[in-house]
Amino acid sequence: MPQNAPQFPLLSRIDCPADLRGLARAELPQVARELREFMIQTLSESGGHFAAGLGTVELTLALHYVYQTPVDRIVWDVGHQAYPHKILTGRREQLATIRKAGGLAPFPKREESEYDTFGVGHSSTSVSAALGMALANRRLGGDRRVAAVIGDGAMTAGMAFEALNHAGSTKADMLVILNDNDMSISENVGALSNYFSRVLSSRLYGGFREGSKKALEMVPPLRELVRKSEEHFKGMVAPATLFEELGLNYVGPVDGHDVDTLVETLANLRERPGPQFLHIVTRKGKGYGPAELDPITWHGPGKFDPAAGKLAPKKPAGPSYSQVFGQWACDLAAQDERLVCITPAMREGSGLVEFHKRFPDRYYDVGIAEQHSVTVAAGLACEGIKPVVAIYSTFLQRAYDQAIHDVAVQNLPVLFAIDRAGPVGGDGATHAGSFDISFLRCLPNMAVLAPSDENECRQMLYTSYQHEGPAAVRYPRGQGPGVNIEQEMQALPWGKAREVRQRKAQGGKKGIAILSFGALLDRAREAAEELDAALWDMRFVKPLDLDTVEAVAARHEGIVTIEDNTVLGGAGSGVLEALSEMNITIPTLVIGLPDQYLGHGSRDDVLEEAGLTSEAIKARIERWWNEQDKTGSGKRLVS
Amino acid sequence: MPQNAPQFPLLSRIDCPADLRGLARAELPQVARELREFMIQTLSESGGHFAAGLGTVELTLALHYVYQTPVDRIVWDVGHQAYPHKILTGRREQLATIRKAGGLAPFPKREESEYDTFGVGHSSTSVSAALGMALANRRLGGDRRVAAVIGDGAMTAGMAFEALNHAGSTKADMLVILNDNDMSISENVGALSNYFSRVLSSRLYGGFREGSKKALEMVPPLRELVRKSEEHFKGMVAPATLFEELGLNYVGPVDGHDVDTLVETLANLRERPGPQFLHIVTRKGKGYGPAELDPITWHGPGKFDPAAGKLAPKKPAGPSYSQVFGQWACDLAAQDERLVCITPAMREGSGLVEFHKRFPDRYYDVGIAEQHSVTVAAGLACEGIKPVVAIYSTFLQRAYDQAIHDVAVQNLPVLFAIDRAGPVGGDGATHAGSFDISFLRCLPNMAVLAPSDENECRQMLYTSYQHEGPAAVRYPRGQGPGVNIEQEMQALPWGKAREVRQRKAQGGKKGIAILSFGALLDRAREAAEELDAALWDMRFVKPLDLDTVEAVAARHEGIVTIEDNTVLGGAGSGVLEALSEMNITIPTLVIGLPDQYLGHGSRDDVLEEAGLTSEAIKARIERWWNEQDKTGSGKRLVS
Repeated sequence: MPQNAPQFPLLSRIDCPADLRGLARAELPQVARELREFMIQTLSESGGHFAAGLGTVELTLALHYVYQTPVDRIVWDVGHQAYPHKILTGRREQLATIRKAGGLAPFPKREESEYDTFGVGHSSTSVSAALGMALANRRLGGDRRVAAVIGDGAMTAGMAFEALNHAGSTKADMLVILNDNDMSISENVGALSNYFSRVLSSRLYGGFREGSKKALEMVPPLRELVRKSEEHFKGMVAPATLFEELGLNYVGPVDGHDVDTLVETLANLRERPGPQFLHIVTRKGKGYGPAELDPITWHGPGKFDPAAGKLAPKKPAGPSYSQVFGQWACDLAAQDERLVCITPAMREGSGLVEFHKRFPDRYYDVGIAEQHSVTVAAGLACEGIKPVVAIYSTFLQRAYDQAIHDVAVQNLPVLFAIDRAGPVGGDGATHAGSFDISFLRCLPNMAVLAPSDENECRQMLYTSYQHEGPAAVRYPRGQGPGVNIEQEMQALPWGKAREVRQRKAQGGKKGIAILSFGALLDRAREAAEELDAALWDMRFVKPLDLDTVEAVAARHEGIVTIEDNTVLGGAGSGVLEALSEMNITIPTLVIGLPDQYLGHGSRDDVLEEAGLTSEAIKARIERWWNEQDKTGSGKRLVS
Repeated sequence: MPQNAPQFPLLSRIDCPADLRGLARAELPQVARELREFMIQTLSESGGHFAAGLGTVELTLALHYVYQTPVDRIVWDVGHQAYPHKILTGRREQLATIRKAGGLAPFPKREESEYDTFGVGHSSTSVSAALGMALANRRLGGDRRVAAVIGDGAMTAGMAFEALNHAGSTKADMLVILNDNDMSISENVGALSNYFSRVLSSRLYGGFREGSKKALEMVPPLRELVRKSEEHFKGMVAPATLFEELGLNYVGPVDGHDVDTLVETLANLRERPGPQFLHIVTRKGKGYGPAELDPITWHGPGKFDPAAGKLAPKKPAGPSYSQVFGQWACDLAAQDERLVCITPAMREGSGLVEFHKRFPDRYYDVGIAEQHSVTVAAGLACEGIKPVVAIYSTFLQRAYDQAIHDVAVQNLPVLFAIDRAGPVGGDGATHAGSFDISFLRCLPNMAVLAPSDENECRQMLYTSYQHEGPAAVRYPRGQGPGVNIEQEMQALPWGKAREVRQRKAQGGKKGIAILSFGALLDRAREAAEELDAALWDMRFVKPLDLDTVEAVAARHEGIVTIEDNTVLGGAGSGVLEALSEMNITIPTLVIGLPDQYLGHGSRDDVLEEAGLTSEAIKARIERWWNEQDKTGSGKRLVS
């Protein structure tokens, strides 16, 4: 965008927040309009997170206008809503590259900008991080100010509560801004969500009683929000909020789209000592009609036609693994009364929309509350219910102790349906499911299965559901190879691998065998064809098929393992352990994700970066085999 | 105890809760006295958790008197306070065996009794578990009632809040009992603790205003508690509590030592639909003067003289690893202004009492809030402070995502001082630090060190503190071998192992080498002496000393690794990966914790169960080597 671009006369001149602060306050509404228009134009062509950012345009402007960034620290929670922040902090022209390989990171990232004070991706970390910064400032005798912006959905996570509990007792100079739009990625659930509605109602009503209609006049959109809990209107003065109870100074609610009020309020709060709490009310998708009406669809819509408000048609494709899971859950629920599904605020992402519709009383959305999601499942399992916890690999990290202490130690039959295992693409390193095999495999009692295609996924879910103990089925983001999915569910032989390809060259102990775990089987197959390697779909990371490992080792000169988990402690490592345990020494190559955080891009981009294309896999095996050869064994890979 | 034992005429007749329910209500205070006396007598001789159980005598009686256990479900949080429950549910005579090998489990355990509805150990799980049971009851159309008992300390953990948020929105029939004694293992901290004091004050005052002195008359000990927050007394009606805001029906506060009132209140609440919340006030150590005065010391006092109120003198012994850590933290804090320590409510256990005293403004006890403890450290690290998170291995499981997402992904210099790594002894499987090497080693950027003695621990802490990235030093419970601790701190060569013993037999590639990781070095040394094996103290799990591994492999016929982490994905697994990566095939034996949850007892007991005495290690190596021999290599271990 050239400076003074006719469409964006003000925005085009803002290359950093200092430029913004050079504008008159009266110009901010105009900047807000331009910012919104710029986002709609750019993201309609490039795709990206959309509705959340439209909701925080005024807040972002007001924050950078009042807070002296980058010396002052703004910590954005999750980061879906940080696009306006990126635009105002020197990254306007790169916005179209966001989430693409080599482009802007999907969320704030410390390496990317000095204005990105804390890397995020998972929700509910901002209050803790901001409190740490505020405490550091106090220790260092500095003068910087710290503000965290957290959504009402993110507030349901326990760690936000832990942080508020600590903050309220420290007297740290900091501001927590609750961006209340009654919406996380899914609809918000839980008592807290109702509570926020009540606070809005009672506060507004309190305002009336005191004879001042100003509050409502200033914040017209609030009127719509005054809808629930009518009984709380009866003659109360506004009670102390939950946040006041926790020792924070509560201010609000304030219209989050009134930039003038925001600037004034923030200027005031920035100077106040001790922990401050500002409750603002915004609308997701604000300023773009279709997104306001349906913020779930417009959370991250991909490309769209801005004038028509229509999403770009999706390529016809097979069902995603999430859909395979959702279909399986519906099918089995129809047969088995005991099945219930639990999700920590990921109904859409986990493929549970249909299940929720068909089995509303067997569906538990617990909010962004991963820890609780697992232990409530354990409680259900104690009583003979068969709970399925639908959770992303990266979010299961947040319930690790619960998976150990409440499920695995007690050997309870909880099924973990782990979506987004392995690289996830655009969401990048914070969301990658790179570790679940390592952190689950080491737990006694825990079974770990990895399907290689859609039908395997369905049958593995069924198999694990029958298992009398904890089990995890981990499957990747997006589509599989597109195989036919058998409607009938059949239990797979427990702990047994499946032979996919035999070597063409017969006789004697010769060549190599590839043991593939999970979603990279197709890539492994291509490499196996070219190298004339035997190929096994191992199916079970744990219990590992020791008979197959032993037999394969006896018949081949080398073993290669392949997985889309880190190679440290992963499935291949399990094979090494098994070989060691069985006193077998054989050259073994472990292929998987490297010991580094990978970038963002498409899932294929990330797999390529990780050296996991079929070509790279083949080349890697050849290189390794040639190394073996150098040691003097005289072996040849393809005879 | 014979029936009708003169000292315990009522208690001796109670072999199950039905017996208790056969007594007249007027007899319950007498049972309470006997129960307390029985605990004091028994535990003074056997040791065990003490003060918490004395505080819940009346509550336990009232619960089993009103709730139709075992059909009704009582879920105890943490379980320190469940001794009276064990006594009343058929385990009276075994109480003296608690925490000992083969004896009663330290906490409720499903395998041990049908009255133990949910296994615990870590705090703050009870509301989730009880909610799961209540939801199951609703689905199954059953008639059982569910009650959870949770302490005020445990309430600070986010997962309790997550569970309340969910419970308040479900209308599940359940009761949450807040056992408020203003005390977890350490003193309680945080805004919630202040909040509870205010609730007590304002509620009591509310009672007065309404003209009824009954509340205070019924609950005389509460009067002492009315001490803080005087400003809340001024003419308020009792406001809605935080728990009412979350959708639970709040009742209380009630004197938790008035068994009559408890029975009445519980009988009432048991019948009410929807989520109920009962706030009771108890005193830790109730009925035993010294424990009332100093409940921290009397949390788990070991043996003591009940008449004199004196703890049994501890054997003179070297400093524990916790003390080594605490001393190191003090010493370095005196030199380096940037150092701060963070603990999630484990000041005493982590050895930070002295640090707290000397550096109060550089000490952060965040309450039972593991997730927050790690992310607040990340925030501090962003600003140039050098945070040390002092945390038990088993509790770090609860902050796993934070260690990944907030620390390791951002490569922030946070030092994890991990206490209680490996088997912990009396606290059993829920508290064992069996997995930290596996779940940390797989994370990019994370360094993992394991000291073999006290001085190594001190120097490793210093070394890791200097490291420009995340690092974890993991050390065991209790004393080390008792080596001299060098006051001067020196950085160890990063990623380098230390040779401990060379083979006596010289020349050629021969014999085996033992690579030891951490605290089992002494046991490894004994085995190495007898087997004439080379021995290395590897020091670094990650980065692993590849040069040493390569050189050792080149000079020996076999490698043995030893650690007190699980063998799945542990340090030995890392050696296997390195050998594979370096194209080295050599017989390797991985020794460590087996893939099962181990029992409780002393740390030595548990290590013995795991086959990790020096004799067992030696025998295991010999057996393995003989197996190698059978394969026809003709090798001899000791030449």
